[in-house]
Order: sequence, then C-alpha cells, then structure tokens
Amino acid sequence: MIIAIGLYSGFTTLDAIGPYQVFSTVPGAEVVLCAAETGTLDDDHNLMHLRVDATFADVPRPDILLIPGGPASLALARDSAPIVDWVRNAHPHTRWTASVCTGALILGAAGLLDNRPAATHWHFYDELAKYGAQRTEERIVIGDRIATGAGSSAGIDLALTLVAEFAGPELAQGIQLALEYDPEPPFDSGSPSKAAKPIVDTVSFMIDAFEKEYSRAVVRD
Amino acid sequence: MIIAIGLYSGFTTLDAIGPYQVFSTVPGAEVVLCAAETGTLDDDHNLMHLRVDATFADVPRPDILLIPGGPASLALARDSAPIVDWVRNAHPHTRWTASVCTGALILGAAGLLDNRPAATHWHFYDELAKYGAQRTEERIVIGDRIATGAGSSAGIDLALTLVAEFAGPELAQGIQLALEYDPEPPFDSGSPSKAAKPIVDTVSFMIDAFEKEYSRAVVRD
Repeated sequence: MIIAIGLYSGFTTLDAIGPYQVFSTVPGAEVVLCAAETGTLDDDHNLMHLRVDATFADVPRPDILLIPGGPASLALARDSAPIVDWVRNAHPHTRWTASVCTGALILGAAGLLDNRPAATHWHFYDELAKYGAQRTEERIVIGDRIATGAGSSAGIDLALTLVAEFAGPELAQGIQLALEYDPEPPFDSGSPSKAAKPIVDTVSFMIDAFEKEYSRAVVRD
Repeated sequence: MIIAIGLYSGFTTLDAIGPYQVFSTVPGAEVVLCAAETGTLDDDHNLMHLRVDATFADVPRPDILLIPGGPASLALARDSAPIVDWVRNAHPHTRWTASVCTGALILGAAGLLDNRPAATHWHFYDELAKYGAQRTEERIVIGDRIATGAGSSAGIDLALTLVAEFAGPELAQGIQLALEYDPEPPFDSGSPSKAAKPIVDTVSFMIDAFEKEYSRAVVRD
C-alpha cells in the first residue's frame, strides 16, 4: 500500500504532519512525501525546510493520496498547477483521495468535488464553493472514495478515520493510543461557532493578511 | 522572543510539529529549529528529512525551549548527549522549558524533574521515574517554569497552554481557532485507561519492538 502526501512550498506543516504521523504508523504502508520536483520545500512560515526525494511522476498510482492545505494552495488551484493534474490523473485509481484544510481547493480544481459536500478551513468556505463544492461545516466529510477535512488539526481525525476504513477500527484505535490522542484543548474556541466574535474577526483578518503577504512573496520570487 | 525546538535524528515528527505549528503562529516570536549539528535530520520512521540550520550553540538563551520525544530520546538521555547539556545550561534563563512525550527523559537527564511530577508518553512512566520524576497520568503538567506533556499529540495542548501563559488566553484561543483545533477523535481510545486491553497490549509490544529496531539501526550506523 502506497500512501502519497503531495506537497508544495507554502504548505502548512501540521496539515501534512498530522496525517503523516498516523499513516507512517500503519504496518506495511509505504508513505511517500512527494512534490512537483525533488529538493527542499519551505513551509508557509519559511521556518520548516523539508527534503523531498520523490516527484509526482514517481508516484502516479498511490492507494491513498492526500493534499495538505496552506496559503499557496489557493494559487496552485487557480493556476491548475502540476499538483492538480497529478490529483486528477491519480484519483480514478486510488482507494481514497483526501485533503486537509485548503488542500480541498486542489481537489476541487481537479474536478473531484463538483456538487459534493466537502470540508475545508472555515475561512475558505466561499473559496471552495467556486469549485462547485457544497458548503458544509462538518469537520470531516467521507464520500465516495473522497475524504476531506477541515482546518489543519482536522488531519489527525481524518487520517484515523481513513485507517479505520481501510485497515479496520482496531488498528486505528491502536494508532490513536500510540499517539496518545486523547485531546484536552485548553479552550473551547476551535471553531467559529464556539470562539468569541472578536477572536473570529481578528483571526480572519490575520489569515487574510498572511495570505496576501504570502502571495506577494511568491510573486517577488 | 526566541522559541527553540531542540531536535535530533530519531525524533517523532508530530511531537515537534504540534508545538511548532502553534508557536510559529505567535506574532513576533522567532521559532528556531536546532540540533547538535546543522544538516539534515531524519525522523524515527526515516521518512521525514528536515533541514536544520541552527545548532544548540547558536541558541544558548531561548525564552522557550521545547524537546520533542522519539525513540532516540532514551539513548540520548542515558548517554548525556549534547542536547542534555544544552537543556541544563539554558534552563536557568528560560521562561519555560518544556517537553512532549519522551522528550521529558532529556529534561530528566538534565536534572530538571527531580521530585517533580512530570508527564510523558504512558508507555514510559517507569523510564521517566529513573530520573527522579514523580509518576502522573496527567496529559499536561505545568510547574515552576517547566511544562511537560504526554504522548505525541499532547504537544498541541501543551503549546496552546503555554501561549496562554506567556501571551494571554485571547491569543491562544485565536491560534486554536486558526488551526481549527476542535478535535473529534473517531474513537475514545487515546489513553491506556480508555482503550481496550488487547489494544493496549498490542501497542505496548509494537512500541517496544520499534524502539529496539531503532536502537539496532543507531548502533549499526
């Protein structure tokens, strides 16, 4: 079983690493981190520098394919970057094609979410709707071989759910135990319906600013 | 504010990345990934290859210092590796010295946990007790400038708690919202008191085997 996580510079680290940590604990699974080109990828804060040894062309037929989110995903989806083609061509052969956060935009650009409910980061519901997806506030949407998760941390819940689907609930429970995933968030502020309004507004502003800053940096390079 | 995350080959990725993701979202904080030497570090599955540009010597006085866990941490703690000296020398000057999972063993080896309650991965309570720490099943222990978290995923809860301590609860709530950390684990199996006994036994066996496999690999290199 090959599990491919498709990366790009400007991805959000936790979006990729939550599922990575769950999948890399599945006995017999080969997890492959891949990108359009081999080399070093920088995350959205340009603080994490990850060496990637496989290209999309090296992994044309993964059993599980997952795309993390990140500020760069918006432009990649709009511009039909190579990652979009990879998803489109690989999807007919996968057992599961999945996304975390704004990774759903790339699945959408590949035509996978038309008229389907799909989860994404709460700040990007409207952006995802542009690709024909139906709006939902669900944390995880499991459809016909397509699984989408909400913002960053939802990737852990998503990956455990997929492991239960393809390898059975006992293994998923074991991995959950191995990672001691018995969450105790210090606040009840993890979704816009639960957080205080001023905090939602501030975070929305910060996300927009971050995305613009990021887009400028991409253009400048 | 400098937040240093001290790494080593054989670390568990999520242990580092959960806190990394939270801390890198703190405005004005400089997050530094550092190790004994610069270069590429491999995680415990040898699937993640991270470029690290700073050494411990480059970050002698971080405001926040955090050590993730991983199978290599046991040997590093026992052998008083350079990471132990770094923690010992930096700790008197930090605002918080913290660990996730078996990273607590390194804090213990540095003499920080003597006669203190400290959290660690549930499978390593006895190992941590060798360093004088008091056994506790808490997910997070916040003491006098020392904060310890349980297994891997506890790093997210730990880091949000620390942000609330040093920057206030509003920012911590905002980061929790930005990462959409409103967990919905698919099972209630994230701690040994909640998981079924056969699953606890199987995971314990797998962790022991993984650790031995890892130790062999280290010796062979």
